[in-house]
Order: sequence, then C-alpha cells, then structure tokens
Amino acid sequence: MSQVYITQRMVEFADTDMAGIMHFASFFHYMESVEHEFIRSLGMSVYSQINGQSISFPRVSAKCEFKSPAKCEDVLDARLILTRIGRSSLSYQIDFSRMGQPVAVGEVTCVCCHIYHDRPPESTPLPDEFLEVLTPFLVTT
Amino acid sequence: MSQVYITQRMVEFADTDMAGIMHFASFFHYMESVEHEFIRSLGMSVYSQINGQSISFPRVSAKCEFKSPAKCEDVLDARLILTRIGRSSLSYQIDFSRMGQPVAVGEVTCVCCHIYHDRPPESTPLPDEFLEVLTPFLVTT
Amino acid sequence: MSQVYITQRMVEFADTDMAGIMHFASFFHYMESVEHEFIRSLGMSVYSQINGQSISFPRVSAKCEFKSPAKCEDVLDARLILTRIGRSSLSYQIDFSRMGQPVAVGEVTCVCCHIYHDRPPESTPLPDEFLEVLTPFLVTT
Amino acid sequence: MSQVYITQRMVEFADTDMAGIMHFASFFHYMESVEHEFIRSLGMSVYSQINGQSISFPRVSAKCEFKSPAKCEDVLDARLILTRIGRSSLSYQIDFSRMGQPVAVGEVTCVCCHIYHDRPPESTPLPDEFLEVLTPFLVTT
Repeated sequence: MSQVYITQRMVEFADTDMAGIMHFASFFHYMESVEHEFIRSLGMSVYSQINGQSISFPRVSAKCEFKSPAKCEDVLDARLILTRIGRSSLSYQIDFSRMGQPVAVGEVTCVCCHIYHDRPPESTPLPDEFLEVLTPFLVTT
Repeated sequence: MSQVYITQRMVEFADTDMAGIMHFASFFHYMESVEHEFIRSLGMSVYSQINGQSISFPRVSAKCEFKSPAKCEDVLDARLILTRIGRSSLSYQIDFSRMGQPVAVGEVTCVCCHIYHDRPPESTPLPDEFLEVLTPFLVTT
Repeated sequence: MSQVYITQRMVEFADTDMAGIMHFASFFHYMESVEHEFIRSLGMSVYSQINGQSISFPRVSAKCEFKSPAKCEDVLDARLILTRIGRSSLSYQIDFSRMGQPVAVGEVTCVCCHIYHDRPPESTPLPDEFLEVLTPFLVTT
Repeated sequence: MSQVYITQRMVEFADTDMAGIMHFASFFHYMESVEHEFIRSLGMSVYSQINGQSISFPRVSAKCEFKSPAKCEDVLDARLILTRIGRSSLSYQIDFSRMGQPVAVGEVTCVCCHIYHDRPPESTPLPDEFLEVLTPFLVTT
C-alpha cells in the first residue's frame, strides 16, 4: 500500500501578491486543504461528531520552506506523508512541486481536541475511528 | 536603545474558524503585518524602489508554534526581534501574547530580492539603506 | 452628534495581487473590520452573549463598487453610515477614499441571528441593547 | 450549445468562521475562482500577454446575496452565466447552490485592462482573442 497521499492544487490569482508570486501564507492554506482532503479520502472529516462530542484538530506548530516561487495558475503536485502518530497528535509533511521541481516543503503538527463553544479546545486521545484508518499511512523508516 | 519592536493586533472575526478560535494560517498574516510595520517604523518600505530597481523580501521559511488559542477581538501583544542579518537575508522572531500569556511564537526568514515582472525574483545583497537602519536592531546575545 | 463613523485602514502587502493592486475581495474584509470597530465603539461586540444566547450578524447581501485602485501601504479613510435599521436587519454604507479621492463604495446588510452549533443561524429581532446604541447613528435624510 | 458554465467548489475549513458557517467574503474568492476556471476552459488566462502587453481584468463592482449558510465540506454547485459583453467590460452572474437549494447569488463586472508596474491599470477594448471565445457564451434573453 502506498504510504503517500498525492493530489494537486492550482495557484489561484487571489493567492498571488504584488511581487507576482504566490503569497507565502497561502501555502499554509494549501497545506491544510491537502491534509483535509487526505482525511476525507479515509472516510473521515476534520470536524467530526464522535460519541456526541465535536472533534477537530487545532495546530500546535506549522512550518514551511519555500524553495522556488509559484505563479498564478501553476499546477502544483502535492504529496502528503504522515510522519508521526502520537497519543493525541498527528504530524504531516506536505511537499509541493511543479514538474519535479521543489516549490515548498511544509510540516504541520495538530492535536485532536474536543471543541467547546464556551471554553478553549481540550486535547483528547485520538479516537479509534481515526487511529484505524490513519495507522496504515504512517511512514515507517 | 530597545532592540525589540512592540505593537498590537486585534483578532478580526474573519480570522476565526468554526472551532471558535483564530485560524492558524492567519498568524502568518499577522506576523508579516507586524514585520512590515517594523520596516515602516524605520522609514523604509517592504516594497521599495532603490537605484531604479524594485526591491522586496520574499520568504524562504516561516514557522509558528501555537501556545494557546486566540479568540475574536482578543488584543494580542506582538513583539518583534531581529535575530539575524545575513548578506541578503533577514531573520525575525515575532511573539504574540495576551495579558502576559504566550499565544504564538513565530519565526520567519526572508531574502532581499530584485522583483521582475517577467522572471522570478533574484536575491541581492541588502542595500545600505536597509543595513543602516536594521543593524541597530540586531539582537546581540 | 455626528452620524458618521470615521476610521482608517492601511493596505497590507498580503492584500495585493499580481496586478500590483489591492485585491477586490479584500475590500469586503476591510468593510467588515470597519463595521466591527464601529460596533465596538458603541460598547458592543459583533459576537455577543445576550440572555444566554449567542448573537451575531450574518450577512444577507454585500456589494462594493471599485472607483480607483488601492496600492500597498496606502492609507484609506473609511467612513461608515448606518443607512437602515429593520426589525432584525442593519444596513451600512462604508466608503473608502485616499486623500479625498474615492477608492471604493461598499454596502452591506446583515441580520441579527441566534447562533447555534448544531443548526443554522436563526434571525431574531435586534435586542434592545443594540437598538439603543445604534438608533442615534441612523442616517435621517 | 450550453450558455452556462457549470462546476463545483467544496467549502474549506479555513473559509468558515466562528459562527460555524462559510464567511461571506470567501464567496467572492469562490466567485473569482469559478470565473477564472471558465476563462481557462476557453483556452485563455485571466492574466495574459497579448501583443506584448499584460492584460488582466480588475473588478469595477461585485455583489453577492446570501440565501442560506454553507458549512464546512459542503459541495456547492456553481453556475456561471456571462450576462454582458461591453467594449471593455464583462459582467457575470455566478450562483452557488447545494442539492438544488440556493446558497448565494453573485454578480461581478470586470474591465479588461493593460497592467503596468509603475502606474494604475488602464482600460482597453477586449482583445479579439477574448471576444471570439466569449461571445458564444453571452446569454441572449
């Protein structure tokens, strides 16, 4: 089984800036969009109801290295790897490239949380529903 | 002279998400906004004409650690430190806190570039105009 | 008493696009930001708890006419007028100009709603707390 | 020949706000994204080089009526109609619905412009390359 999730994103005009290239902060939106698409491909949602609780995945860290500029309407190949499954946390690496040339290398760690509407999110162990579908994707090195 | 640039940002409604907190990617916008305000406080602009060339500062890396959630209309104290001046590059640390409690710790490295409209940005040594005003802010440890 | 709320917004680099000007959709963010600042100036919040209910103001329509392009770091004068108070709805006009030159003319209508977390927002009459502080601002023509 | 261009957009988590629904300003991004996809479907680009000139389409007006809230991961059906071709301008209507239920009805007018990097955009008649492919799509009523 492939341990890599592959998809594409096209650079939208609105994500460019006056330097004529994709704005760096938009890469974090594209990273999240790819991560959520991956979660959906497993039959789950990034915002779920499990045992009567709202479950979501706030980020605890995010980083990105920008290797070469992306331009409007560039089609970026995105490649997601699940690098770590903790008790509550998940770490991903998400790379973007264009015709084999690296564009950006992102990393994100998120934590499974109960979401409340009257107090801050609280971390909770990854529900079995997620563990089951995520574990086969964990990169083993 | 203080080596720290201090300002504030209020969390806009549009920067929240359905988990009820500020979306992680918006922190990168706030980081950039603070950095640009710092540049303006030195009498410069993040997009300048110097010797007939367009000069700007594309990012080569950005990261952020999220310590506690920020909510709509929270007033965040922002604190920028210039941690490194390279030949072409600048590295910043930008912290956000709320009433003394850490909210997010960001780092960004950008590279001084000539911006062209028919080809990608090209790195160039930091112009003297920037070096002069930035150097006094470099943190010495 | 002045029936106009006046403030300013500076065009952020991230709000520009590759055409070198502020992206049209960002004007809707600036409009909302000005509207919320106005609400706060009245001692209220755009997301309130009133009688144990979450109250907020989803939009039912928004429009903007773009008169002249805005550029990075332009300081825009913003001018908000409350043009209509309905049973549940509020209509605003928000103009942006730069040194007296019109930049954009926006209009927005929002509806006071109870916000639930398990079903869509439901319109509700404007609470007295809002009526009291908003009514003096209603433009009379 | 169909005079309607049909596509879909899925509501991203980042486009929601703390009221639990898609933020109104994001509809303007989705409208633009659909419009640009339509332009590409005709073999053109929203940012073209024609006769050695940069051609793009700044907006002169945009509006949207919000009929019912959209939620995270909703799949919206988008339907674009070209309602007017002027000498330089184009007007579109772009509707979003979900399982036949109206979600939002947008309208946008843009103007074909030469884009310069040292002065504001200047309107210019629609190049024949665009007229040719757009005219068959004009709605005739």
